[in-house]
Formats: sequence, structure tokens, C-alpha cells
Amino acid sequence: MSENQRQILIVGGVAAGMKTASRLRRLDPEAKITVIERGHYLSYGACALPYVLAGEIGELDEVRRTTNGTLRDETFFARVKGVEVLTRCEALRIDRENRRLEVRFLDDDRRQTLSYDALVLATGSSPLIPPLPGTELDGVLALKKVEDAAAIAELVRPEARAVIVGGGLIGLEMAEALRARHMEVRLLEMQPQVLSGILDADLAEQVHRTLRQNGVELHLGEALKGIEEKDGRVGRVITTSGSYPADLVILALGVKPNVELAREAGLKIGVSGAIAVNERMQTSDPAIYAAGDCVESRHQLNGTPLYLPLGSTANKQGRVVADNLGGIDSAFSGVLGTLLVKVFGLNVGRTGLSKEAAEKAGFEPVSILAPSPDRVHSMPSARPILTRLTVDRKSRRLLGAQIVGPGETAKRIDVVATALSLDATLDQLAEFDLGYAPPYSAAMDPLHQAANALRNKLDGLADSLSPLQLKQRLDAGEKILLLDVRSPDEYAEVRIPGATLLPLGQLRSKIAELPKDRLIVPFCKISLRGYEATRILLAAGFDQVAYLEGGILGWP
Amino acid sequence: MSENQRQILIVGGVAAGMKTASRLRRLDPEAKITVIERGHYLSYGACALPYVLAGEIGELDEVRRTTNGTLRDETFFARVKGVEVLTRCEALRIDRENRRLEVRFLDDDRRQTLSYDALVLATGSSPLIPPLPGTELDGVLALKKVEDAAAIAELVRPEARAVIVGGGLIGLEMAEALRARHMEVRLLEMQPQVLSGILDADLAEQVHRTLRQNGVELHLGEALKGIEEKDGRVGRVITTSGSYPADLVILALGVKPNVELAREAGLKIGVSGAIAVNERMQTSDPAIYAAGDCVESRHQLNGTPLYLPLGSTANKQGRVVADNLGGIDSAFSGVLGTLLVKVFGLNVGRTGLSKEAAEKAGFEPVSILAPSPDRVHSMPSARPILTRLTVDRKSRRLLGAQIVGPGETAKRIDVVATALSLDATLDQLAEFDLGYAPPYSAAMDPLHQAANALRNKLDGLADSLSPLQLKQRLDAGEKILLLDVRSPDEYAEVRIPGATLLPLGQLRSKIAELPKDRLIVPFCKISLRGYEATRILLAAGFDQVAYLEGGILGWP
Ligand SMILES: Cc1cc2nc3c(=O)[nH]c(=O)nc-3n(C[C@H](O)[C@H](O)[C@H](O)COP(=O)(O)OP(=O)(O)OC[C@H]3O[C@@H](n4cnc5c(N)ncnc54)[C@H](O)[C@@H]3O)c2cc1C
Ligand SMILES: Cc1cc2nc3c(=O)[nH]c(=O)nc-3n(C[C@H](O)[C@H](O)[C@H](O)COP(=O)(O)OP(=O)(O)OC[C@H]3O[C@@H](n4cnc5c(N)ncnc54)[C@H](O)[C@@H]3O)c2cc1C
Ligand SMILES: CC(C)(COP(=O)(O)OP(=O)(O)OC[C@H]1O[C@@H](n2cnc3c(N)ncnc32)[C@H](O)[C@@H]1OP(=O)(O)O)[C@@H](O)C(=O)NCCC(=O)NCCS
Ligand SMILES: CC(C)(COP(=O)(O)OP(=O)(O)OC[C@H]1O[C@@H](n2cnc3c(N)ncnc32)[C@H](O)[C@@H]1OP(=O)(O)O)[C@@H](O)C(=O)NCCC(=O)NCCS
Ligand SMILES: [Ca+2]
Ligand SMILES: [Ca+2]
Repeated sequence: MSENQRQILIVGGVAAGMKTASRLRRLDPEAKITVIERGHYLSYGACALPYVLAGEIGELDEVRRTTNGTLRDETFFARVKGVEVLTRCEALRIDRENRRLEVRFLDDDRRQTLSYDALVLATGSSPLIPPLPGTELDGVLALKKVEDAAAIAELVRPEARAVIVGGGLIGLEMAEALRARHMEVRLLEMQPQVLSGILDADLAEQVHRTLRQNGVELHLGEALKGIEEKDGRVGRVITTSGSYPADLVILALGVKPNVELAREAGLKIGVSGAIAVNERMQTSDPAIYAAGDCVESRHQLNGTPLYLPLGSTANKQGRVVADNLGGIDSAFSGVLGTLLVKVFGLNVGRTGLSKEAAEKAGFEPVSILAPSPDRVHSMPSARPILTRLTVDRKSRRLLGAQIVGPGETAKRIDVVATALSLDATLDQLAEFDLGYAPPYSAAMDPLHQAANALRNKLDGLADSLSPLQLKQRLDAGEKILLLDVRSPDEYAEVRIPGATLLPLGQLRSKIAELPKDRLIVPFCKISLRGYEATRILLAAGFDQVAYLEGGILGWP
Repeated sequence: MSENQRQILIVGGVAAGMKTASRLRRLDPEAKITVIERGHYLSYGACALPYVLAGEIGELDEVRRTTNGTLRDETFFARVKGVEVLTRCEALRIDRENRRLEVRFLDDDRRQTLSYDALVLATGSSPLIPPLPGTELDGVLALKKVEDAAAIAELVRPEARAVIVGGGLIGLEMAEALRARHMEVRLLEMQPQVLSGILDADLAEQVHRTLRQNGVELHLGEALKGIEEKDGRVGRVITTSGSYPADLVILALGVKPNVELAREAGLKIGVSGAIAVNERMQTSDPAIYAAGDCVESRHQLNGTPLYLPLGSTANKQGRVVADNLGGIDSAFSGVLGTLLVKVFGLNVGRTGLSKEAAEKAGFEPVSILAPSPDRVHSMPSARPILTRLTVDRKSRRLLGAQIVGPGETAKRIDVVATALSLDATLDQLAEFDLGYAPPYSAAMDPLHQAANALRNKLDGLADSLSPLQLKQRLDAGEKILLLDVRSPDEYAEVRIPGATLLPLGQLRSKIAELPKDRLIVPFCKISLRGYEATRILLAAGFDQVAYLEGGILGWP
């Protein structure tokens, strides 16, 4: 080790840390780069763990292999990436003044002090464990690390009873995984809906339906109170409204950033409780960078700080740190909150702000819910997707999308995310030259249809109500004519209670029979015909008309 | 019909025409809207015809049904859309001065003159039939209309011999369709590659491989000379280098715009031979609009006029026409040349300009070919995609992408198309907050990987050669060390002739054994390790290093 060799220390050896190390080595062949990781395993794809547990990925080790099958262990990082990693080594304390880091080797309790020119905190996050009795029992686990997955795998048996606490991303992925392994699955969620803060209530209802159809026993609005022991391990789960036998409890209540090192060193902690960084990913001490699950991000649309720990963000941020340490000026421009999750046959995604969040951020948001088949509807592979778009009324700037359905949603989420990043307007979205061939889309992509439906709403061509808005008005006792403009066959199959059937093809001829003294709410399967009926009614002089957004498909 | 009711005439009743009519009726309940269509069928999805012929879509009528199963015929348009359609009625002549259109009813030869306030030409396109002997024979067909599909369907039999002339989108879709029906399929393409003008030669090679693997006999660089009769119908196909027996010949040589009406009326025809329109889709006569396959489009990136007839564009343009006629000022902002086509298990797409086209347009384009798995590689559903990105060197503005592979390419094409529309730079692409969960993508999306690889090239971090550039230099006899940095197992499976094996993990220790007097070209399966090796070699003082873009996967 040469006298003036630059010393880079990185604490944390999963995504952000190993990305920083790998990229920095490519930029700087000279620096000494050392990663300090208190765990056994490095550079693993935690995101893939639910798919290992589902039996989809055959082997747990797969989550730490490269595409060509090499295990990403210390030897790999030394030989291939030119990076030294100390595992089972914990960073204890940062001495900022002298640029030193105190570490302890967990296997022999040896302590050592390492000097640094630059320090990178990639300490990640830890599962939130609620301060309730019984969470320490055998058979109660959170899923975060490779070891957690191994421990859960031990308890996966057909017919065994699992309770999953938390209806977030990991809770839902685990519900699917354990059902795939033929376990009995109960899912507890304190909120009245799963994915709260991610999906609006009506779209969450689509997820609820899918969960139930796939044999998950959903307990919404029900919180964990404690876990009871039986024979020295987990026995029953006690909630605010019941108690359930359990052989396995998964705590999936989210994660909290690992900020102890940073806090004790006096580094600035953000409002979200994660480490505050600037665009270059520097903490309040310019010699100390931070990236990944331990840092606070900034939302690109409203500029507000938020905590949204994701593997995609961790990698991007790690690369920005490496660039800045490697002489390439680089900034991380923030996040859009883009999320995807597969829930059995349902593809769920959101990007940007919900209407509620947009309102809070000072926008004047307008939304629409507009379903479409995901490709040419006569293709046997076609499946519906339900798209909710939100824009700002005055600037017509896109603010966000939530898309749910058995069809291809991920593509449309990525298109909207791209558009959001580039400040696109609704009108631009409606015109994007997206790819079209029957196996992939329709001549008007579902995004185009949704964008046009929203333009029609903004432009005053057709008023519409979201399913929840309609429900509220019906519940309030308002006299409303629910006008089902589908065919008699469709009506026979499934209908909304209280609706009057008048197929669209007969509307023009029978229009005189309709009442003018109340709100008419036309709808069809997806409300394309509902919209068409609205235009016909308005043209005929009806002035209280608003179609039901999403029609039968969107009805919760 | 009231005296001052506005008269709108639309010529052509498929996509552009029926879109215009449908939207305009919604905007204007008063106008008289009449569509004139010389064919039997209206509003059909020609794009779906190959999938009917493949047997994937069960019934030919499906291509003209709505999502809920209603046939889009004259009655449908009258009752539901409030639009009158005259079928089997041909527009013969436009009298611009008096705003009159002369039409002829094909069934009884009756002629009529209709007045208009505004006229919309949506006359579409017709298949190009080469002026060669035998194209009129029974069994020789182009695929454009419903009737064509019905005629082809009559000739589809297992073991029957088909010759497809033309390796464009429709030719390739038909090759797949007829193979699905167990026919013998020969595909003739005059150019040395299929999809010429759409894919670069090396990526076209991926398509060739797929076609051959699926039993299509490819005849590249071979042109049709004529078709010989046998027993009163098609017998043999004669080409510039052979002759083949045929029970069915599909002419898939592209289409030409139907501009006779427009030309005879003295309307301006563009350089591409299609009708010239302004942004509002008006022809040189402001009372006459045109949309769809009969008009010339403008490329958003270089501003040049081009002819690219697509159903997606036809619908968007039809809607713009309707808006302008309906009182909503609207402009069509041009196309990006986005195309998708499925070729058996291969998903093929491009958007924007190729390197060649970008050069012609005055850019200084730089490209890269960078393959990746389409999602977390350990997911059993993961499949590779090969991404070629092109950007402008100075502005770093994105110019285009070609993406080919069994994996999910359509999503990435749409993301790039969106980015192109909004003038995004390469650096912005590398940062988009795209959705990530293992069933959909990887923590660094394939687009992020490709964008970063191209940034590395632009920033001088790693030089690289496209497969064709390397081939040319090898063919020219240059002494090059092809350095295969994969594992011995991978090497045993498949290799590039003449390459030397040195696994990446051993490179750092054995680097002294490598020669410094020649170009070293490291590569691996996708050249991620090839890139890594490049950085290691450069750091060790080797100054002639350029990795092989795309590695084994990209090698034609
Ligand atoms: C089940 C599951 C599914 C997920 N699915 C997705 C998904 O679909 N999409 C997505 O984008 N993200 C997903 N994530 C999130 C993703 O895995 C994380 O965002 C990512 O792992 C964060 O990486 P990181 O390096 O910042 O932090 P971490 O992965 O938390 O790693 C931090 C490391 O630092 C070490 N460390 C901490 N403090 C010290 C110390 N003082 N000394 C030494 N070492 C220390 C820890 O031991 C740990 O190994 C998922 C996570 C889980 C658990
Ligand atoms: C097999 C096939 C596959 C395709 N796949 C795709 C795809 O995957 N993606 C995509 O985007 N596009 C695809 N297309 C292209 C798409 O179908 C066309 O772009 C679209 O049909 C154009 O619509 P249009 O209304 O402009 O013209 P057309 O469909 O050509 O319709 C024009 C109509 O005008 C009528 N007409 C013309 N002149 C007169 C006259 N003088 N009087 C009365 N009537 C007249 C014609 O009879 C015709 O019916 C495909 C086309 C085919 C044939
Ligand atoms: C893998 C890991 C160690 C990072 O190492 P890395 O070497 O940067 O990553 P990769 O092996 O993917 O290589 C990426 C590099 O190859 C380049 N590359 C990718 N594909 C390429 C191709 N086809 N041709 C040329 N270069 C390519 C990229 O540009 C990048 O280089 P750069 O950052 O210098 O621009 C780190 O991401 C990690 O530990 N990941 C696992 C954990 C994780 O991500 N968890 C969260 C999600 S579950
Ligand atoms: C179908 C066709 C007649 C156009 O008619 P259309 O009524 O405009 O089209 P759709 O039935 O798809 O309805 C679209 C309308 O419903 C709206 N809409 C779509 N989904 C909606 C939803 N879920 N909720 C509310 N409104 C919706 C759209 O905004 C659009 O209205 P707008 O144009 O006034 O904004 C014409 O496109 C056609 O003939 N297509 C077949 C041929 C073809 O496209 N070929 C080329 C490809 S192969
Ligand atoms: Ca940046
Ligand atoms: Ca426009």
C-alpha cells in the first residue's frame, strides 16, 4: 500500500456499496477500495428472495450469482472487480476529524481503525419490528437478508399456516410465494386497503379481489397486537379483532434506514429519518457520501424529501457516488416513486403522484380511470389494464399514473415515468409514437386512450365520476340514473345493482324516454361506450350527465 | 337535412376515415357526416389479419368487431356512432371549385354528386404489385384487405408450398403465420437482409437465425423475376438465382399511397409520393384534409418528409382531423418511425434514426450494441434482449434505438420513443426512474445498462467495436487478439473462432502474458465482462483495447 494511495472505505456490501465499489474501481485503478460488511453475504439480490421462496428460482445462491453463474463472494470481488471486502466486520464509529473508521471483526471481536480519504455509507435498512409481545419467538421472521430467506424456507410446508403482517410490496409478494407452496395464508393489514400510499382505494380493491381469488385470507383494517407462544415457538397471532393459529409469521411492515453510524458522527439526518444528502450524494460532511436504503431521496415532481428504499435507486445512487469519487461530476436527480409489484396474475404499478399527494403538493390535479385491453382485443393474449392518470389542470402537466391489471402494465408505467422525468404534458402523452403491432398494443395504446379520455374531461367534453365518487353520491341518497349501455348479453352476465339497461345502439332512438331531472351516469364494461353515451346525451340536451369511469371493470 | 347543416364527406372507411368520422360526430352532433367506401368492409383491423391466418384469432370477422363483440358495419356506424356510410361507393372526382365530389355506386353503376363543406381523404394505400409476368395468376396474392385474407385462407393447407416475396413487416408476419399452419415457407428478399431500412445488418442476422430455426427457407439477395403458370394457376416462382414450386405466393413488397383523387384534383403531392399535408392535416386546399396511409408524414427528429403507413399513425391523424373540423385546434407533431414486429419468438423493434440515417441528417451519431437479460437473470422467465442505442456525440441527444430478442423489447422501444419525443439526452435516459421488480426488469434496466455503456464510450472510458466493424477489420487481415474472458465452461459450449480464452477472474494475475503490439478485443457473452476487461487492460497500460459490442450474443 503506497503512501499516497487514496483510501476509500465503503460501509455496507449489498447493492449501493458494491455498485459504488465496482464502478469506482473501473474509474480509478489506483485507489484502495475496501468494503466493510457485517454480514456473511455480499451483493445479493434481496428482491429475488420471494421468488426463491415461491420455488420459482431453484436455489437460494442464485440471488448472488452473476448472469454467467459466478458467485459474487469476496474472491469474486477481489479477482474480478479488484475490490477488497471485509465480511463479518462491523463499522462502529466514524472519527470525522481524523478521517478514521473504527471497525470490529465479529468472529474474533478484533478491533481495528482504518483511515479514509473518502467514506461511503451504504448501510442500508433493517426491517421494522413492532414493539409487541412475541415478535422474538421462533417462527416469526422478517424477510430482508439471505439468512432470513433460508430460515423461512425451513418453515415452508404444504398446509402449514402462515400469517403475513403488512400488505406492502414484500407482504404481497410473500402471500403469492407461500400460496405457490400450498400454505394457508392470512394477510393482516392495519389500513383498510393493501398498498396504501401506493394505490387509490378503488384500484387496491382489484388487488384484494385477486388475493382472495387466490386463496389468501385478507384481514383489512386489522392490526397486530401480539404473538402467543406454543411449545416454545409461535402459536397464535393476536390482532385487534381476532386471533389466528400460525406456524409461520412474516413481519412485512417496511424497513427503517440504518443511520446510527451517521447520527453518532453528527451527520445531518433528513426529515424522513434517513441520511440527508445533496445531489452529488454527499452527506453534510463532504468527505462522506451515502447511497441506497440509508439515504433520503427527493421527489422529482414536488421536490419534497421522501424515504423510498429501492434496489433500482440504490444502484443508480451508488454509481453517482462512484462517479463523483472517480472524477466524473455527477448528480442524482431524484425519484418519481415508480413501483412495480406482481400479485399473482395481476401486474400493479404506479409512478409519480396520486391525486391526493398532488393536491398536497399544491397542484390542481384532475384524474381519470380508463381501462383498455392491453393489445388488439381479438388477440387471445389480450388482457385488460386499468389506468388512472393524473395531471395538473392548468399546466396540463402529467403528475402520475397507477395501472393495475392482468395485462401489460409495466410498459405503460415506464412510459409515464419517462414522460414525468421530462415534464411532459397530457397532450404530448396522447401523441407519443409508441410501437404498435397486435401482439404488443392496439393502434391507440391504452395510454393514448386514457390520455384522450382525460383530455375530454379537462376540455369539458365529458364529465365523469370515479367509482368512489359515484358510490359516495349513491350512498348519500342522491337520485341518480345508472344507465348501463352494454348489450343484453353482457348485462345478463354481470351488472351493477340498480342500473337500467339501454344498449348504446338504441340510445339515439330511445333517448326521449330518459328523465331530464336527475344525473344520468352511463357506463359499459370499460366506459368507452359510457363516454360515447355521454356525448349523445349532451347533444340531445341532457345537461346532467357524467359517465362512470372504468365501468364494470373499474367497479370495486 | 337542414339547409345550413354542415356537410362533411370522408373518402375511405377503414382506420383514418372511421376515426375521423367517429370523433367528429362526438364533437359535432349537428354536421352531416358521410363516409364513402368502395369496398364491402369497414373499420377493419388489417394488422390482425396475419394472426387470423396463423389460426391465433379464430374468426376473420373478429378483425371488425368491437371489444364487446359488435360488428362494425354500416348499421353499427349509423346507430352507435351516428355516421352514415356508403359502401361499394367509389369517389371518382373532386370538384374543388364547387366543393363537390362525384361518386359511383359499384353495384349498379349509379353516379351521384355530393356537396361538401369539408372533405377528408382517407383513401389509404394499395399493395405494390411488381410489373412482372404471372402476378395476376390464381394463387398469387397480396395481403391488405379482409377479402385478401379470405382468399389466402382458402389456400392454406399443411405441407402446401408458399413463397413469400418481401422480408418486411408483413412478409415476416406471414412467414410465421404460414409456418404455424405447417406450410413449407420460402421467403425471398432482394436485399441482403430482411427488414432493411429498419434494422442494421447485424441485428437483422438475429432475425435470419430465428426464421431459419423455425423452418423458413430464406433467400436473401434474391429478387423475383416472374411467376410461371401450371394448370391455370401459380406453378413456379422464378427468381434471379433459382426457381421454386409454389402453391401460394404472397406478394409483400410494401404499399403505395392511393393519391389518384388528390393528384387529379391538383392537390400537392409530397416528395415521397403521398399527399402533402400541414400540421393540421390540411392538404394544399384548406377545405380538404387528409390522413392515414395516403399522406406523407414528417420525421420528428430530422424534419424530413417520409412515407410510413401505419395503423397507429392513421388513428392519431384521423383524430387530429376531427378535432380541427370540430373546433379544437390540433396539430399532428410527426412520427419517430417506431415499429414493432414479432417474428416467431423474437420481439423486434426500432424507433428514431439508425446511425446511417442520423449521419445523413447531419448528426454526429455514436452507437452501441449492449445486450442484457430483460429481467433479473435468475428468474426462469428472463430472456435476453439486444439493444442498440444511437446518440449525437456533441449534444448527447438520443437519436434512436433498435432492440431485438426473445425478451421484452416493446417496453424499451416505447420508453425510447417517449424520450425521443421529448428531446431527452443519453444522460437523462440513464437516470429514468423506471419500474423495477424481478418479474419485470433488473435493478439497472437493460436501457440503463445500454445507456451507461454508451456513456462510457462517449466519455472515452472504453472503446468498442460493433460486430460488423470487427468483422471488417479481421477480414482486412488486421492482427487482432480476440480475448474471450468467459469461463472455460462457457467457452466449451460456443466460441468465436480464433479467440483466446482468459477468464476475467484470471485477467488481473495473468495480464503480463498479453501482447502489447496489437489491438486486444475482449468479449464475453454480452460484453459486460468484455467492458470490465477493457478497463483492467487500460489500467495496466495496454493502449490498444476495444471490446466487442454485444459479445457472443451479438455476434452475427
Ligand atoms: C424481500 C425484498 C424484496 C424487494 N424487492 C424489491 C423490488 O422488487 N424492487 C426494488 O427496487 N427493491 C426491492 N427491494 C429493496 C432492495 O433490496 C434494497 O433497496 C436494496 O437491497 C438496498 O441496498 P443497500 O445496499 O442500500 O442496502 P442493504 O441491502 O440494506 O444493505 C446494507 C448492508 O450494509 C450492512 N451494514 C449496515 N450497517 C453496517 C455497519 N455498521 N457495518 C458493517 N456493515 C453494515 C448491512 O449488513 C447490509 O448488508 C426488496 C427488498 C427485499 C428485502
Ligand atoms: C397485413 C397488415 C399488417 C399490418 N400491421 C400493422 C401493424 O402491426 N401496425 C401498424 O401500425 N400498422 C399495420 N398495418 C397498417 C395499417 O393496417 C394501415 O396503416 C391502416 O389500415 C391505414 O388505414 P387507412 O384508413 O389510412 O387506409 P386503408 O386501410 O388503406 O383504407 C383506405 C380505404 O379507402 C378506400 N378508398 C380508397 N380510395 C377510394 C375511393 N376513391 N373511393 C372510395 N373508397 C376509397 C379503400 O377501399 C380502403 O378501404 C398493417 C397492414 C396490413 C395490410
Ligand atoms: C452487481 C453489482 C456488484 C454492481 O457491479 P457492476 O460491475 O457495476 O454491475 P454489472 O456487473 O451489472 O456491470 C455493469 C457495468 O457494465 C456495463 N455494461 C452492462 N452491460 C453491458 C454490455 N452489454 N456491454 C458493455 N457494457 C455493459 C455497465 O455500463 C456498467 O458499467 P459502468 O457502471 O461502469 O457504466 C451491484 O449492483 C450489486 O451488488 N448488485 C446486487 C445487489 C442488488 O442490486 N440488489 C438490489 C436489487 S435486488
Ligand atoms: C374504431 C374506430 C372506428 C374509431 O372509433 P372511435 O369511436 O374513435 O374509437 P374507440 O371505439 O376506440 O373509442 C375511442 C374513444 O373512446 C375514448 N375512450 C377510450 N377508452 C375509454 C375509457 N376507458 N373511458 C372513457 N373513454 C374512453 C377515447 O378517448 C376515444 O374518444 P375521443 O377520440 O373522443 O377522445 C377506428 O379507429 C377504426 O375503424 N379502427 C379499426 C381499424 C384500424 O384502426 N385499423 C388500423 C390498425 S389495424
Ligand atoms: Ca444526473
Ligand atoms: Ca399536437
